Amino acid sequence: MILYENATSGNCYKVRLLLAHLGLEVERRPVDVVDRSNRPALLGGLNPSLRVPTIVLDDGRSLGESGAILWYFGEGTRFVPDDRFARAQVLQWMFFEQYDHEPAIAVARFWLALSGDPDAYRDRVPERQAAGYRALDAMERHLEGRGWLVEDAMSLADIALYAYTHVADEGGFDLDRYSAINAWLARVAGEPGHVPIDA
Amino acid sequence: MILYENATSGNCYKVRLLLAHLGLEVERRPVDVVDRSNRPALLGGLNPSLRVPTIVLDDGRSLGESGAILWYFGEGTRFVPDDRFARAQVLQWMFFEQYDHEPAIAVARFWLALSGDPDAYRDRVPERQAAGYRALDAMERHLEGRGWLVEDAMSLADIALYAYTHVADEGGFDLDRYSAINAWLARVAGEPGHVPIDA
Repeated sequence: MILYENATSGNCYKVRLLLAHLGLEVERRPVDVVDRSNRPALLGGLNPSLRVPTIVLDDGRSLGESGAILWYFGEGTRFVPDDRFARAQVLQWMFFEQYDHEPAIAVARFWLALSGDPDAYRDRVPERQAAGYRALDAMERHLEGRGWLVEDAMSLADIALYAYTHVADEGGFDLDRYSAINAWLARVAGEPGHVPIDA
Repeated sequence: MILYENATSGNCYKVRLLLAHLGLEVERRPVDVVDRSNRPALLGGLNPSLRVPTIVLDDGRSLGESGAILWYFGEGTRFVPDDRFARAQVLQWMFFEQYDHEPAIAVARFWLALSGDPDAYRDRVPERQAAGYRALDAMERHLEGRGWLVEDAMSLADIALYAYTHVADEGGFDLDRYSAINAWLARVAGEPGHVPIDA
């Protein structure tokens, strides 16, 4: 399998983290996340959104969207619950991540830490940070008294939300105020088979 | 079942459209999408993101995120494919909708047609329209020569993307240039059991 990806992208890290837990090998093909001019040539025909991660299976079929790739590999494993309502809860958190959390926290991180030109975005950061703190507040409220986001076990929801939460400081977010989130981050990182984002 | 929702919201319409196709009844509870001050009292404890749609099942359990609600009711019906890869493709389009399509097209529509103060947003519309046209272009390329987004049948992907595409003109988008999208919109609307957004 081939994974078009970027080493710094949390969306790509989600896929690498799940595949590591599942013991699946993938060939990594680096894609630039600042200069995107080669995206149509590289990803056209593979992923309608021209974004990474994009995975090409051994039979040549391709998938985009981190959440869809996680679901493809996660179904039938311990990371997707057997119960129908719990499966929907996992997807609820995965959609929350892509709609509320990632566009705030990942984008602020990209602007400040990865774009190479943080000053160009400086006046747009406060809006994203306010939205990011709202997402973190929602996670903190939910994780108080819970070990994992859904049921009593790690799922795709935890993998999806771990990716950018654990590097939120790079987007200017102060995680010290979130004790439940910090305990949960340590829990995810302590799972056997865990790999860091820079592995 | 109780659906906290708004009659103009495409995200809420997705749920109503699927439930109509499945012949399931739901009690609609209107929620304001402009004045959001009562959201914590209304939706706190039901949906971490405090957004609509939020559904409360007969047993009191609640779910947020349109995509997760669609999946909960869609699993095991004709709207979720039996094939694992096709299921992931459905989710790919649903995540594409929430990440690329909705934040551009639904937000431009909200600002221009629903906010009550379009001038306040006027200078931010062009960026959303550019992003929205990129999403529509991606849909058009994919739908050329295809009847449906995934496999040869209507799925949750079609319901999810129909919701805001069919009212994109209210966000200032010119759909006349998209012949494959227009044929697909007519196909979705022509399915037995279809209900319009204002039903």
